[in-house]
Amino acid sequence: MTLERVCDDCGARTTAPAARCDCGEPLWLATDPGSFSWDDVSDSPGMWRYEALLPVGFPGGLAAAAGGTPLLRDDALDEYAGTTVHVKVEGSHPTGSFKDRGSAVGLAAIESGLVGDAAAVGTVSHGNMAMSTAAFATAADVPCVVFVPDDVPQARLDVIGQFDPAILTVAGEYSRLYDRTLELGPDNDVVFLNSDVPLRVEGQKTTVVELCEAFAPDVPDAIVLPVSSGGHASGVWKAVRELHEAGTIGRIPELYLTQAAACAPIADAFERGDSTVSRVEGGDTIAYSIANADPPSGTRALRAASETGGAVVSVTDDEIRDAQRVLATQAGLSVETASTTALAGTKQVVERGFVDSGDDVAVIATGTGLKEPPAEGSHDPVGTVGIDDIDAALGRFLGG
Amino acid sequence: MTLERVCDDCGARTTAPAARCDCGEPLWLATDPGSFSWDDVSDSPGMWRYEALLPVGFPGGLAAAAGGTPLLRDDALDEYAGTTVHVKVEGSHPTGSFKDRGSAVGLAAIESGLVGDAAAVGTVSHGNMAMSTAAFATAADVPCVVFVPDDVPQARLDVIGQFDPAILTVAGEYSRLYDRTLELGPDNDVVFLNSDVPLRVEGQKTTVVELCEAFAPDVPDAIVLPVSSGGHASGVWKAVRELHEAGTIGRIPELYLTQAAACAPIADAFERGDSTVSRVEGGDTIAYSIANADPPSGTRALRAASETGGAVVSVTDDEIRDAQRVLATQAGLSVETASTTALAGTKQVVERGFVDSGDDVAVIATGTGLKEPPAEGSHDPVGTVGIDDIDAALGRFLGG
Ligand SMILES: [Zn+2]
Ligand SMILES: [Zn+2]
Repeated sequence: MTLERVCDDCGARTTAPAARCDCGEPLWLATDPGSFSWDDVSDSPGMWRYEALLPVGFPGGLAAAAGGTPLLRDDALDEYAGTTVHVKVEGSHPTGSFKDRGSAVGLAAIESGLVGDAAAVGTVSHGNMAMSTAAFATAADVPCVVFVPDDVPQARLDVIGQFDPAILTVAGEYSRLYDRTLELGPDNDVVFLNSDVPLRVEGQKTTVVELCEAFAPDVPDAIVLPVSSGGHASGVWKAVRELHEAGTIGRIPELYLTQAAACAPIADAFERGDSTVSRVEGGDTIAYSIANADPPSGTRALRAASETGGAVVSVTDDEIRDAQRVLATQAGLSVETASTTALAGTKQVVERGFVDSGDDVAVIATGTGLKEPPAEGSHDPVGTVGIDDIDAALGRFLGG
Repeated sequence: MTLERVCDDCGARTTAPAARCDCGEPLWLATDPGSFSWDDVSDSPGMWRYEALLPVGFPGGLAAAAGGTPLLRDDALDEYAGTTVHVKVEGSHPTGSFKDRGSAVGLAAIESGLVGDAAAVGTVSHGNMAMSTAAFATAADVPCVVFVPDDVPQARLDVIGQFDPAILTVAGEYSRLYDRTLELGPDNDVVFLNSDVPLRVEGQKTTVVELCEAFAPDVPDAIVLPVSSGGHASGVWKAVRELHEAGTIGRIPELYLTQAAACAPIADAFERGDSTVSRVEGGDTIAYSIANADPPSGTRALRAASETGGAVVSVTDDEIRDAQRVLATQAGLSVETASTTALAGTKQVVERGFVDSGDDVAVIATGTGLKEPPAEGSHDPVGTVGIDDIDAALGRFLGG
């Protein structure tokens, strides 16, 4: 079996193991949903329930823990955002983020021989994607190389290193490495699972397939998620189009993408009404893991929002902190700073009238907050008590 | 509706909101599995699929994310342990540990009025149980008080504090507080969800109900889990007995409990052939979160192991480090240090001939490793490369 790749922009097709079209835009796998319906799900665990929509089937091992994430509602979040919020808890993945879906498909494709000779897998990341790729690679017995910038703290290296990849620090322009590895990978038999490559996009489709099945026979009115490289947004868009093409869903939800204001090239382009995304000079933000100044699938993501009737918006660090606090203190969910832009952005699109207050909005909480210190910072005890004063302390605490 | 409590040791029954029998042993809720079968599961999410076996139904909110955790196999783990290993990944819970099952039931019971007047919920912990109780309490809009020792690092307070409980530091003997709060709770209308209280034990039943359904119509030969207070082991034992009583499973799996050698009162009692557990002088171990020198449900846990034909064993810190490394580098799973005692213990019970090499062994990985630095420590890059030397570096990395 040969995988065919297609450019969603210019329509070019190729069977070469490329991630980029000659036109410069990202390639997708050419897949056919046929007449997929919810009766066509399999008995495989988690995301592999949707094997019929994926290029590869359940490979066993760690992949059993990819997908199948919880979806929950909390009235306090509705009140905060001004609409009906459904939170998809992607932080429950084994390495704590949505990245595990794409890593699972990437490694399954390698294990099954679907991508030809692959001596190793690689990625360019020092965050969630590095952890996820390294974990799934070692579980699949595939050597893994992770390129990190030369200023990564040792603690981060130790966390990635627990899965025993070969970590290489890069001296020089780290940002150039993303594209450079995609060019060099095929000749070196290294499959680079960077964030918007075709195999990873296939895996990321499943978040939204799960969402849509949970809403069936209805469809969520809108889906909101953070955008960085644009790879996740690509997967979400490809998923809703395939489900719509198959007749599985009767309409396509509006896609809303959220960025941090300090580094918001896609939101900037959307506000200007541009049809392509340009590189920006990004500033610092607490949502560091989505601060991508030159997103490789930025234009694709922009189109996903525009063509579905959604939008791309940016939120400030204060709004991000606020959303993180609300998720923790109202819903009991610890969510990664970058991921909380989705809830902050939901509040904004309701306020701006893009989304109605009665709408069902699926908010994708892409990563767990358990891996980073809470952004709010210090939390002090309300008091100190002696072991024999507990009774009185309970009375005081309860206002008695 | 009034909850009846029963002592599994002396048979006493009470409707008082107590956690301890007059005989000193922990009380359980008196529950009746009836003729529960796998056809009696509900459509509720996660662990609420087994509402028929619980004192309370699905309450909505965060509880949707409790239970429904992955179960996976990896040949490398079989090779390591010497038998057929099935890992139950409890770290995928919203606060990263199995504690969320018990917290979910506890808060659902309070929300539904099942436990009478409850002005607040409390717990005595500075680890997983504190986080879990605080998260579920705030999600359920129930005030929460967490008692911590006075030497807890600020970083830990911040992590617990993100869910906004009232944190009280305790000056004096922290170990006495566990029982003291259980005595004082009812008179102050505070429900203390300490680790072996009846409501928490009910929630912890569901881990094993999920396991058994995954194996149906077969039954795992053995279940291995870490033991600290004995509350989790209690839940596991209560679950398999209820399922067996209902005829849902044809035989009761052997229960194996694991401790860290430096603090192993229950394993010590088992080795001596004692019928009760005595307090020990515990030493330091990297498995700090299960180092309980005076486990309140220790005798109950000991009976669970003995009466099912299992055992209680202890493993050294080196064995714990080794198991953690194997889980990460072979299966791609980041598991909390204390939780890896279960895999290390599995290897030991196979070596000692308690478990056969052909047996199906369910190993409960009770908590995620993503919240703590890996025990193995430092992991260095294999090298540094310039951006223009990537091609050569890939060649070198691949031995080309
Ligand atoms: Zn093209
Ligand atoms: Zn008794």
